[in-house]
Amino acid sequence: MGDPALSQIRIVLVEPAGALNVGSIARVIKNMGLQHLVLVNPQCDPNSDEARQMAVRGHEILAAAQQVATLTEALQGCQRVIATIGRDHSPDQSVEAPRQALPWLLDQPAALVFGREDRGLTTTELNYAHRLVRIPADPAYPSLNLAQAVGICCYELYQAAELLEPLPDRPSDQNQSESVAELASFEALEGYYQHLETVLLKIGYLYPHTAASRMGKFRRLFNRSQLSKAELALLRGILSQLEWSLAEPKKTT
Amino acid sequence: MGDPALSQIRIVLVEPAGALNVGSIARVIKNMGLQHLVLVNPQCDPNSDEARQMAVRGHEILAAAQQVATLTEALQGCQRVIATIGRDHSPDQSVEAPRQALPWLLDQPAALVFGREDRGLTTTELNYAHRLVRIPADPAYPSLNLAQAVGICCYELYQAAELLEPLPDRPSDQNQSESVAELASFEALEGYYQHLETVLLKIGYLYPHTAASRMGKFRRLFNRSQLSKAELALLRGILSQLEWSLAEPKKTT
Repeated sequence: MGDPALSQIRIVLVEPAGALNVGSIARVIKNMGLQHLVLVNPQCDPNSDEARQMAVRGHEILAAAQQVATLTEALQGCQRVIATIGRDHSPDQSVEAPRQALPWLLDQPAALVFGREDRGLTTTELNYAHRLVRIPADPAYPSLNLAQAVGICCYELYQAAELLEPLPDRPSDQNQSESVAELASFEALEGYYQHLETVLLKIGYLYPHTAASRMGKFRRLFNRSQLSKAELALLRGILSQLEWSLAEPKKTT
Repeated sequence: MGDPALSQIRIVLVEPAGALNVGSIARVIKNMGLQHLVLVNPQCDPNSDEARQMAVRGHEILAAAQQVATLTEALQGCQRVIATIGRDHSPDQSVEAPRQALPWLLDQPAALVFGREDRGLTTTELNYAHRLVRIPADPAYPSLNLAQAVGICCYELYQAAELLEPLPDRPSDQNQSESVAELASFEALEGYYQHLETVLLKIGYLYPHTAASRMGKFRRLFNRSQLSKAELALLRGILSQLEWSLAEPKKTT
């Protein structure tokens, strides 16, 4: 069943190592009306007895869990991506509370990404996210069990979806498809970043050895602004125009 | 260390049967700045390897957990008791959401009581509670793992305690005392509301018979924004300037 506002959200676990955690996560995903679990290169067996025992009636979520090799595969088709981050990580990007950021995933092809039990997500992985969240916790011991972290975020999603229901001034069905259509897809953004990097290298703004970190800043900047398809088309248009100008013999100048 | 508003709250588990759950609960109790775990007639060994492995750095909470024979013993000295309840139980008493009810436990000798994994709390046990909470969940499968349920409630308690602090933006150690000092005092706000009312009456915006209710709206508005001293000074400056303009003979216009 589940709430329609939650039906397009996938919970993505990057290299989870604990079968108990994965099972427990399948259960709480079902408790909170979500459906999709994606495991990126899991380091444990999601079909083990341990996992299934913890899943209880979430076993179908576990059985249907998609396994992929990389985070980029897990994010195919998503328009909104939020990643979770621990206390010890302090990225350039601003970090929000789940209650503040997670409602933004509702009614969208979206992903909520959780990192490894022991060391979370890498900077490269975090750079795929449009927004970052950190669960408020006591600074004396802020490191939550993975399943607890997922549970708390799913609970916030469920509550946000419940709040959506009776309110006509919230995103309603008629303008939903419209605004979904407007946002640039993950693939389109990736295509743009590749194109941008190529052009910036070509003009000598980027150097091969610093390109990755500099591009990380651009990714964060553009991801934060939540580009629409139309805006992305404009940005790509600039790049094409630039390339055209660079190729053209400079007669007119 | 933990938040002082949380320091008198005990988490009470009635006959928990899963050592993994108890260990996981010890961890999340510590994550969320709580300290006291009370086990009523536990059906598992809280000092087992399983429990301690799940507790990780919450092991001290586990080691200090009090074991008692009955719920009444567990509640000795408490002034406020909230019990959690599953979907299948429908008591006479009204049932609230955690977010609504749990802040009531702050700063009090208080207990939050969780029932058995399989069948929750008995009616007799529920009757010790002043209030009942139920975690919002999908009606298709509302039965949460015990540790998840405790985790979500502790998270709500931690957030409620954080909101208690007088800080509009998130407490960071270095600016904490500073921004506390910056907030306008109760007396200063009252002075402003009086001044505002006087001026609004003078200009004929307020009428004496409706002033009180209209001023109530302004109070709520400004109180919600948690004005700083500096902002309040600006607002008062506007009023003073307004009064000056009103008093001045209109030669120049």
